[in-house]
Amino acid sequence: MAAIGDQAELFPVVNASGPQAGSVFSLKSASTPSLVGWKTGSYWPGNQAKNIPCHGSTVFLLSPETGELVAAVAATKVNAYRTAAADAVAVDYLARKNASVLTVFGTGHQAEYEVLAVAQVRNLSRVIVVGRSENKVQKFTEKLIKQGVNAEAGSAREGCEQADIIVTATTATEPLFQADWVQPGTHISAMGADKAGKQELPVELYANAALFCDYQPQSEVIGEFQHAGNVHLTEMGKVITGQATGRNSDDAITIFDSSGIAIQDLFVAEKYWQKHPPDPRGCSVKDQCSCTTDRL
Amino acid sequence: MAAIGDQAELFPVVNASGPQAGSVFSLKSASTPSLVGWKTGSYWPGNQAKNIPCHGSTVFLLSPETGELVAAVAATKVNAYRTAAADAVAVDYLARKNASVLTVFGTGHQAEYEVLAVAQVRNLSRVIVVGRSENKVQKFTEKLIKQGVNAEAGSAREGCEQADIIVTATTATEPLFQADWVQPGTHISAMGADKAGKQELPVELYANAALFCDYQPQSEVIGEFQHAGNVHLTEMGKVITGQATGRNSDDAITIFDSSGIAIQDLFVAEKYWQKHPPDPRGCSVKDQCSCTTDRL
Repeated sequence: MAAIGDQAELFPVVNASGPQAGSVFSLKSASTPSLVGWKTGSYWPGNQAKNIPCHGSTVFLLSPETGELVAAVAATKVNAYRTAAADAVAVDYLARKNASVLTVFGTGHQAEYEVLAVAQVRNLSRVIVVGRSENKVQKFTEKLIKQGVNAEAGSAREGCEQADIIVTATTATEPLFQADWVQPGTHISAMGADKAGKQELPVELYANAALFCDYQPQSEVIGEFQHAGNVHLTEMGKVITGQATGRNSDDAITIFDSSGIAIQDLFVAEKYWQKHPPDPRGCSVKDQCSCTTDRL
Repeated sequence: MAAIGDQAELFPVVNASGPQAGSVFSLKSASTPSLVGWKTGSYWPGNQAKNIPCHGSTVFLLSPETGELVAAVAATKVNAYRTAAADAVAVDYLARKNASVLTVFGTGHQAEYEVLAVAQVRNLSRVIVVGRSENKVQKFTEKLIKQGVNAEAGSAREGCEQADIIVTATTATEPLFQADWVQPGTHISAMGADKAGKQELPVELYANAALFCDYQPQSEVIGEFQHAGNVHLTEMGKVITGQATGRNSDDAITIFDSSGIAIQDLFVAEKYWQKHPPDPRGCSVKDQCSCTTDRL
């Protein structure tokens, strides 16, 4: 276990597997003076054929006073929001103030949340969508346009060369682009890597970039920086609290690796639970455990 | 992760802590073709002053087909039964058939379950209760007598010298008795050690005893045999399925270390859930997660 900040503790992540081909689930736990619990994430790829979501996420909260289970929060959407929020916070602290062109790698469920979150912290003039499937790129671009985003399709190279901000939201296991395509002054938020073997960025980027992460011991093992070798990483929490410097020049390349930490889940789930308490008539075990569903 | 048997997998145990002094919780996960999930155990010692149980236990079941959360089973009592059952199964396989005197170290909640479970597999003529508090020993002895058990108080030495079966059910961190007090032919089931630093048995016993456990990688790290050094351990599952030998003579000392494995929890919780399904009118999130409470 490891201390993060002054008051919070994160515990080792369990990466487990289920009986279906490729099915996996994880347990990410944390503790603070006011919040104790864990998130379970599941990925059952066979669900696609059943027309139900492959990804699932539930946050469980224990009472810090007694250890009793107090809430199970169905958090699939909550998880999408908190992941995008963490990446957008990094954009807010690390991207240039006048950054206006966002390139997003990935056309999946999470990519949409990422674009909309970044649009909250920077005035985006253009969003370039990069993906392997022309069809998916087109559909995603249209979806963004309907939400008022000036989106267009582009190649990986165009996306890198024209971007002020790059967000990668893929399940890639090898670099999505070449390091020399990335322009000085670019900020990159990489969220795809969350287990051993995953990779979105070219390691050649790291020598000339300032590197940030959510939680160093996790980022180095299951995050993007598992491929980085011995590099200097700064945790975002230290930038936010003023203990470390973020971007130090307009020409710097900054990279944030978001491996996803349990404390984010617990805080977001608690807020969600407080805003959407379970129907008191609805649960026979209210005194034991209150369940609430995603209604975002 | 590690395979146990042909079809089941156990994943690394998380031992986490809460914000209260001494408060801890654990996550023990497993997967089989028909069962996927984990147990959360909590121990909040401050609960004693609040007159609520210090120990809590909940089993969570995911659908093996889709990974969706299907049940949260409040399993504090279920856990007490399954732990005692595992120890009694070891007694049944390893103790002499004519074993009739049981000595139990410990006077707590679990000790009662242990005695009653062993009474299911051997015809007990006497039960000797050993504990540090005379008052607690007396109360526990009276409680057993009321349930038809021929119980009496005894010292650690008397208990060891007269026992055919010894069960240790304590939170000890050092040996409860001397190795040379234990007579040839004795079987010992030790259930207290489930994390680093816990210990109930003297290591001097191991050189002349046959050693058994529920799950070797766990027993060696967080179970009783963390203190054993490099010894030969046999998993009980192999004895039960005939792949390994149990007791090989009436004079042998046999020792079973029960560190507690998640597969036991998942199976017991599923059976309990099937017998006591949640009230379908009672849970607003039935399609998401069904909760059931301990009504044993």
